[in-house]
Formats: sequence, structure tokens, C-alpha cells
Amino acid sequence: MNAVDIRNVKILGVGKYLPKKELTGEEIDQMLGKTLGWAGKNIGVSKRHFVLDETASQMGAFAAKKAVEDAKISVHDIDCIVCASGSMEQPIPCTASLIQKELGLEKSGVPSFDINATCLSFVVALDTISYLVDCGRYKHVLIVSSEVASAALNWKDEKSVALFGDGAAAMVLGKTPEDESSKIIYSKIETYSQGSHLSQVYGGGTKFPPNLKNVKEETMKQFLFYMDGQNLFKMVKKLLPSFMKEMTNKSKHTLEDITIVIPHQASKSGMSLMRKNLKIPEEKWMDIVSNHGNMIAASIPTALCEAIRQKKVKRGDKVLLLGTSAGLSLGGLIFEY
Amino acid sequence: MNAVDIRNVKILGVGKYLPKKELTGEEIDQMLGKTLGWAGKNIGVSKRHFVLDETASQMGAFAAKKAVEDAKISVHDIDCIVCASGSMEQPIPCTASLIQKELGLEKSGVPSFDINATCLSFVVALDTISYLVDCGRYKHVLIVSSEVASAALNWKDEKSVALFGDGAAAMVLGKTPEDESSKIIYSKIETYSQGSHLSQVYGGGTKFPPNLKNVKEETMKQFLFYMDGQNLFKMVKKLLPSFMKEMTNKSKHTLEDITIVIPHQASKSGMSLMRKNLKIPEEKWMDIVSNHGNMIAASIPTALCEAIRQKKVKRGDKVLLLGTSAGLSLGGLIFEY
Repeated sequence: MNAVDIRNVKILGVGKYLPKKELTGEEIDQMLGKTLGWAGKNIGVSKRHFVLDETASQMGAFAAKKAVEDAKISVHDIDCIVCASGSMEQPIPCTASLIQKELGLEKSGVPSFDINATCLSFVVALDTISYLVDCGRYKHVLIVSSEVASAALNWKDEKSVALFGDGAAAMVLGKTPEDESSKIIYSKIETYSQGSHLSQVYGGGTKFPPNLKNVKEETMKQFLFYMDGQNLFKMVKKLLPSFMKEMTNKSKHTLEDITIVIPHQASKSGMSLMRKNLKIPEEKWMDIVSNHGNMIAASIPTALCEAIRQKKVKRGDKVLLLGTSAGLSLGGLIFEY
Repeated sequence: MNAVDIRNVKILGVGKYLPKKELTGEEIDQMLGKTLGWAGKNIGVSKRHFVLDETASQMGAFAAKKAVEDAKISVHDIDCIVCASGSMEQPIPCTASLIQKELGLEKSGVPSFDINATCLSFVVALDTISYLVDCGRYKHVLIVSSEVASAALNWKDEKSVALFGDGAAAMVLGKTPEDESSKIIYSKIETYSQGSHLSQVYGGGTKFPPNLKNVKEETMKQFLFYMDGQNLFKMVKKLLPSFMKEMTNKSKHTLEDITIVIPHQASKSGMSLMRKNLKIPEEKWMDIVSNHGNMIAASIPTALCEAIRQKKVKRGDKVLLLGTSAGLSLGGLIFEY
């Protein structure tokens, strides 16, 4: 463990928001014309939320207000807003600016920008911005992940429809007070773009713009989420052991030292295989996919929020955030809460 | 000037790439059915490049290779890739991952993620990542801005068509050697989301997804760039003087200390008004908009690249990067080259 790895930062507060519209597995079964019980049995998600009329910035602001309240500060104490989402509300401007507006801070001047590493956006944002908090550049950073996965679902891809959910989670990060021990202990991100095509939304950016006239039904699916789950998992399975080994060696922390692992809620089956592969006991594994679905980058902070709320994590405990994302990236971050 | 502001980082190399297709003002005049000379006279852009078959990641990789060469390192020395663009190549994954692939680093594991603050993405990325370089987390960070502005132009908005250009620029950032004095001296970002609607692409994200069937001609324009230049400039004019005053006070650097100002190449008229408003002499003002157009986030690093190439900046000189962006954000960064 090197001095460069330690950042004396503290999670001052967390919050989450789930959209008003709740959909059970059975409702998804009906929408897809499946036998009742199909989604629950095959996908393992019995409940998720889809936006009704909420935008990503509205959900983000709701979650942010809860995090600010939890941190016992005022929204006016926030001096930096980072949106850490895999999806964006508008192509321009960045979503952080829209969240700032929803928070009523439109005249504040508080710097607002996005950090995007798809499903790992929250981990990368927390990792990156922690150096600025530790150095004193910002005092109370609001990190928000807000995702509307439902906007890009391909309804012909039944497994994706039954897996994903919408929602937001937020965190207020500050410097650790002198007499306390909260800190980031170690973090690591790895990107292997040989897997960049295994999980993607191909169209909608500058390569295949949405402003094409007379888009055919066939090309319309380019704007939707595509995942080759099997090959994605194969690649992760091959990369993860050495990734974890290096984390253990460099952080000088083994699973014994970790109270709970907060994984990306990729899928019920993927998470189960990953947990067994890494020999992580079930009681140290935070699983919220069954009642939230995969919420892209909002998965990890929502699961962390739930772990704290359910008192599975208390001050002094060590937590491992662990995930994979489109890219393909792997990310891990060990912190003392 | 506070210790927190100083980061001992050095620009090790820079590079730029312009697409193969060059378009003169006269060609734009013809395409828009205007009298020859209209674009040159009214917009002040006599030349810009539009992508022919290049993608953002390809352009980014071309610029990156030049920056790596300029830094006299190998592409394999890069240990972090940050894409700092206002537009994205695909909604998923992040563009940095696609740039990594174009660089032939697809099996490297080099962490790759995006930082987005629209036109200020490069300044925010340099500002943010410099703390990690100074702390030793990364040794050679590649920051790449690559923009395909032409993909979202509204051809009925003649001023935008005649103003924007495509292209990419890159920088390799490293720690300053002990006996050298390169450093970031001060940086500041402010976001005022009351202006978030003044410059935007409304559709194409989760609020107004591109996968809508039977999109009408009327709604199609939601996927295109919109700018209320007049009100944008009014807002900037009001905010900029106090922004600059605080920069001067906190950095303890006045325009006297600065060798050259590298502004965002927003527009010929906007830049001219800004320069006069801030009383910056013409010889200290880097203007490339007339032969590059507004290249979104790639404007500032391309102008910096040109300033270095034209020997307007030498080691030891102090440079001010200064810009505005959709959001609305203002950004400034003073460094010793």
C-alpha cells in the first residue's frame, strides 16, 4: 500500500431515488407475452422501477437532496457537482449542469461536469475526485449517478427488458476530520477495449447520428442497448482473478479485512458466478438486483446506500466497491467508511 | 495563491489532427445558397474541416500519436486515457475506450474514461486529472478532445453551419521533473445552469431518445445543435469580469504575467468582444477560429498546439486557457509551460 493510494476523504451522506412507476416481474412477463414467472425465474428480478415522467436530472436532484440531508449540510454547502452516469439526459449540456438547475443552484456558479465510464462511472468519479477533496480543492462534492436505462431498451431483447431498472443515487464526499479514520485505501481501474463491442449502444452519437431521415425499423435498433452477455462474462472471468490478486497485493487487504463487497448489479446469474469465482461468502455480498434491476452506474451507489441504511456497514468498516462496465472496464475501490 | 492550487505537472507533448475534407468559406456559401463571401464576411471562418470517413476515436488516436511522439515516449508508456469531448462517438461505451482501441492498446488494461463539460471538457479534464498526476497516481496521462461537430449541425441554422469545424487535439501530461518549474498555477470552473437552455442539443439522450418511430421533420431538429448566441453572450458578458477578477486575485497573476491567452474559439465576433471586454491586447490572444472554426472542446487544445508549434509559447512562459461552454460554464486555467 503506497501513500499515493490513501485519500483522507469521508462519505458524509448518501441518498437514493426510485421512480414512481414500479414494475413487478409478472408485469414484465405480461408486457413481453411470457408465461407468468418467466422473468423471476430466468432473470431473477422481481421488481424494478421505470421512469413515468421523471427526467435523469430530476431523479438525480431527489437523490442529491437526501444525500445532503444525510450529510447534515445545506445544498448551498456543495462546491462541486459531478454527474457519474452511463447515460446522458441530453447530448449537450452535461447532465451535472441540469442537476444543478433542478437543485435550485442555477445562479450559484458551482462547477458541474460529468465523468463517464458507463457502469463504473460512480467508482471512477469517486476515485478521481477524491484526490481533489483530499487536497482541499473542493470541500463538499456531490457525486450523482442517475440512469434512465428504460429509454434505450430493445423490447425484442427480452432478457435486457427484464433486467434493467431506472433510478438515481448520490453521495456527498468531504475531507476526513483530523480525529477520524475514514479514507479511501486503494482503487484500481482497468480498461480492455477489445471488449468494447460486447456491450454497447452503437447509434445516437457522432458515428451514427440520430438526425437521419427515414430511419428504417432495421437501423432503429442501433439506437438501443446491445449486450453479448456470454462473451462479456467469458472475458470478465478471465480478467478478474488477476485484477483481484493485484488489488489484494497492493492494498494489503484481503477479503478477511472487508466487511462487505458492493458489486455492480450486472445480472443475477453474472453476479452469482462472479461471487463464487472470487470465493466471496454470501453474507459479505450486497445483492439488490432482485428488487432494483441493473441500474447502470446507479447500481453501486444505490447498493451502498442500501447497505448503509440496512446497517450492514458502520463507521470503521472496510468496504469494497467492485464492478465491470462496457468498455470493457473493471474497477475496484476499497474504503474505510 | 494557495498551495492547493499549484500542481507540479508538465505538458510533455501535444498533437492535433484535422479531417481530410477541407471546406472553404466559399464552399459553405455555395452549399447554403449564399452570395460568395457571405461566410467569410459574416462568420469570419474562411476554412474548416469536416469528417469524410473519420470517426472521433480515429481522429483522437491520430492526434494522440502525435502528442506521444512530441513527448518522446511510447504509446505503451501511457497509463491513463481521458477523453475530454463535448460530443460522443457512441452513447455506450465512453469514447476513451474507443480511442484506446484505435491506439492498439485494447489488451493493455490502461484505465480509460470520459470527462465532459461540453466546450470546456479539455480544461476541466486537465484541471481534474492534474491532481492525480501530481500525487503520482498516473505517470503519463493522455487527454484527448475529438469532436465531430458536423454530425449535429442544423443546415437551416446557417450561422452554425458556417462556424463549426471537426477535429481533434491531444496532450500528454506528466509530473514535473525536480529541477524544472512547469506547473498549473491556478484554475477555476463556474457553472450557471440558468443558461443551460441557451446552447444545447435537446434530443438524443434519455429525455428525448433517438429510438422514436416515425419522428417528424419538425421534431428531428431536436437532435440538432441550437444556440441563442445573443443571450448567451449577454450572460457571459455579465459574468466574465468578476470571474476574471477572482482569477487575478487568487492566482496573484495579472495579464502582465501572461504570455498568451488561449481562448475557446467560440466565434469570431464573440471572441473579439470578449477580448476587448477584458482588455487583452491582440498580440496576447490566440485566434485560430478563422481557419479551424469552432471545434467544441477541441478548440482550446488545438489552439494551444498551434501556439506551441508557432513558437508563441516557450518553456517558462505563463499561459491562460479561458473559455465558456454550454451549461453555462466559465473556465480558466493558468499554467507555466
